[in-house]
Amino acid sequence: MIDITPGQIDEAMDWLSSISDKEGKGTTRLLYSKSWVEAQNSLKDLFEKSGMQTEFDAVGNLYATIEGSETPEVIIASGSHVDTVVNGGRLDGQLGIMSAYLAIKGLIEKYGQPKKSLRIISLAEEEGSRFPYTFWGSKNLFNIADPKDVSDITDSEGISFVDAMHEAGFDFQEEPSKFSKMDAFVELHIEQGNFLEEENLKVGVVNAIVGQKRYSIKLKGEANHAGTTLMKYRKDVVECMSRIIVEVIDRAKEIGDPLVVTFGQVDVVPNVVNVVPGEVEFSIDMRHTDQDALNDFAKEVEALIQGHAEVKGIDSTVELWMDEPPVPMNDEIIQIIEQVCKDQNLSYQVMHSGAGHDSQIFAPRVPTGMIFVPSIKGISHNPEEHTEAVDIEQGIQALAAALKKLAY
Amino acid sequence: MIDITPGQIDEAMDWLSSISDKEGKGTTRLLYSKSWVEAQNSLKDLFEKSGMQTEFDAVGNLYATIEGSETPEVIIASGSHVDTVVNGGRLDGQLGIMSAYLAIKGLIEKYGQPKKSLRIISLAEEEGSRFPYTFWGSKNLFNIADPKDVSDITDSEGISFVDAMHEAGFDFQEEPSKFSKMDAFVELHIEQGNFLEEENLKVGVVNAIVGQKRYSIKLKGEANHAGTTLMKYRKDVVECMSRIIVEVIDRAKEIGDPLVVTFGQVDVVPNVVNVVPGEVEFSIDMRHTDQDALNDFAKEVEALIQGHAEVKGIDSTVELWMDEPPVPMNDEIIQIIEQVCKDQNLSYQVMHSGAGHDSQIFAPRVPTGMIFVPSIKGISHNPEEHTEAVDIEQGIQALAAALKKLAY
Repeated sequence: MIDITPGQIDEAMDWLSSISDKEGKGTTRLLYSKSWVEAQNSLKDLFEKSGMQTEFDAVGNLYATIEGSETPEVIIASGSHVDTVVNGGRLDGQLGIMSAYLAIKGLIEKYGQPKKSLRIISLAEEEGSRFPYTFWGSKNLFNIADPKDVSDITDSEGISFVDAMHEAGFDFQEEPSKFSKMDAFVELHIEQGNFLEEENLKVGVVNAIVGQKRYSIKLKGEANHAGTTLMKYRKDVVECMSRIIVEVIDRAKEIGDPLVVTFGQVDVVPNVVNVVPGEVEFSIDMRHTDQDALNDFAKEVEALIQGHAEVKGIDSTVELWMDEPPVPMNDEIIQIIEQVCKDQNLSYQVMHSGAGHDSQIFAPRVPTGMIFVPSIKGISHNPEEHTEAVDIEQGIQALAAALKKLAY
Repeated sequence: MIDITPGQIDEAMDWLSSISDKEGKGTTRLLYSKSWVEAQNSLKDLFEKSGMQTEFDAVGNLYATIEGSETPEVIIASGSHVDTVVNGGRLDGQLGIMSAYLAIKGLIEKYGQPKKSLRIISLAEEEGSRFPYTFWGSKNLFNIADPKDVSDITDSEGISFVDAMHEAGFDFQEEPSKFSKMDAFVELHIEQGNFLEEENLKVGVVNAIVGQKRYSIKLKGEANHAGTTLMKYRKDVVECMSRIIVEVIDRAKEIGDPLVVTFGQVDVVPNVVNVVPGEVEFSIDMRHTDQDALNDFAKEVEALIQGHAEVKGIDSTVELWMDEPPVPMNDEIIQIIEQVCKDQNLSYQVMHSGAGHDSQIFAPRVPTGMIFVPSIKGISHNPEEHTEAVDIEQGIQALAAALKKLAY
């Protein structure tokens, strides 16, 4: 185990999270903003002071490397994204960068130079909070970002992506990134759920990131007078939607974890107290780590919607507008992280991620693993986002031990 | 039966409904507006040309009377309201005035002077469409309108009720209305529902106007990440609401007609696709002709909401903000209308009204009855509001026959 204290962790997170576009509670650090430039440059200085070689790529991903003594061409990397959502917390993304730093610094202090190279990656962007584009950092790292996709987009103030990038001192990649070649990647991140907290566990070893399908469902019945239309003559879309929701949720609970399904958005027309509602549009978000299980459930749900609508003589349209496959983590990396948790007597569990992360871009291309630390009440994307430093410490110990196994 | 043709009915309705604040489809005739003044004055002229004695009361209700030959002090009245909603149809309210006119005119032409007095009432206001106050006409007729309730209200353009009233040439009543004394009142109105059409009937004999309760329900659970929060850890208010809706509607259908219950308004917070919804506010509108049945159902629903919320650890608040009792029509008048329908071989049914009408102000004070004619598809408060003139004719024949029984 490396030497690290909760105090050091809090200090490191307070320092990085204080670099924000806005004052007050929470952190706002949008891609290519003033605070974003300051954060990447400050990290560069910090890493260099610890004896690491630093380099930006064309778009602004920052890499800090300690060369290996025996096979320096073998790269073991760790990190996460430096951008935040608007009024985000102090942990999402940036904890993965600082954990990589503290783990690698701790390893070097205790065990000296690694045999293979160790690398911290501070990715330019993941959230899509300033511009409508996500994973800009990791997608450029692996040369799968298409400049055309961002060439016409602007932020909420009308500033174009390209102008913001140039203003920050960066540009599109002219040739494929040399950093795409690496031999392992481990990302530490807050869980952003309440599973670890509810189960009183400190470390989550991620085995997969869920696939997700998102739907927009429209039901069109008949708006009628709420007093004069007998129940039997109604084509009530809120009733129809409610029957669908109850049945879909009951079925999801029957199938069980890790399947989740959410009806987060409901818009009723005309939405007045004394009119039987004639139109409703609602969303479905469904996620599972297994592609077949997700597909099977989706088919069931689609059939169930159609069935309920037809019985009532209601028109239904079902639009699937997001269909992302599940991404499994690398088995060997999972086993390594699990083993070090056992070795160190950390309370851990192998679990899935219900949210997307940079690791989903890495995993199909590089052996990749993820370590979760608990999120108090599952709160994230919010200034209240919190994990106790003593709990983060266990995650960093697991990360350091895994990197040691991989690089020493 | 009186002599009347569908052509005469269409002509009469086209004439009155053309007096509108706005051009184009539908009729807009708001209380004390220019077209409202024109309509009441035009009706006054029309009634006078038919030999009736006319008089406005202080607030602008118009009365047209044919004196009875034997007991002129006994008044048999019929009519409805002259105001419309914004962009309303050509029938709601005004059909009741024109039907009274056509029926009484037809009776006099065929049977001469009645023994008792016959009176048409063109009520100033019922809809509450210009100012937030309903039944201004009938409430003044019965001296139950409190000037204080309208002294501070304004229309959407900021014009005060009092100024609008003065501008139209009317004022508050200084003494109790002499018109409140009458011996029977029969109102003909469109059904504003689809019961008669669905059942292929031409006349509805109203036995009661429903009582109604309106609720605002708030559920407060916990907003959570839609991906990272397992189903078992959720306090999902949309799920909770859906279970309530399904159970309440199933129970209402079990209890059966005339109970209706509507969930017309649903507002979810934060209402985004990838967040388990943490708050929802929704409306309940429930109606029944029997006070005890309505109260019992309301108790069941309130208990059911609390039960569903408690099971899920969700906070619920239940606000009852409207609680109007049912209003029965007069048994003798119901029997008279039923009898004349039988005598004339009209296809009729005794039914309740699911909507409010001026008759609910009359019925507790004067023997009152209502006659419904079919509304095509139940559409009302809409330029598409329609009833075939051949169907209206049957309603007017029923009205005329009932008035004959009462006044001759």
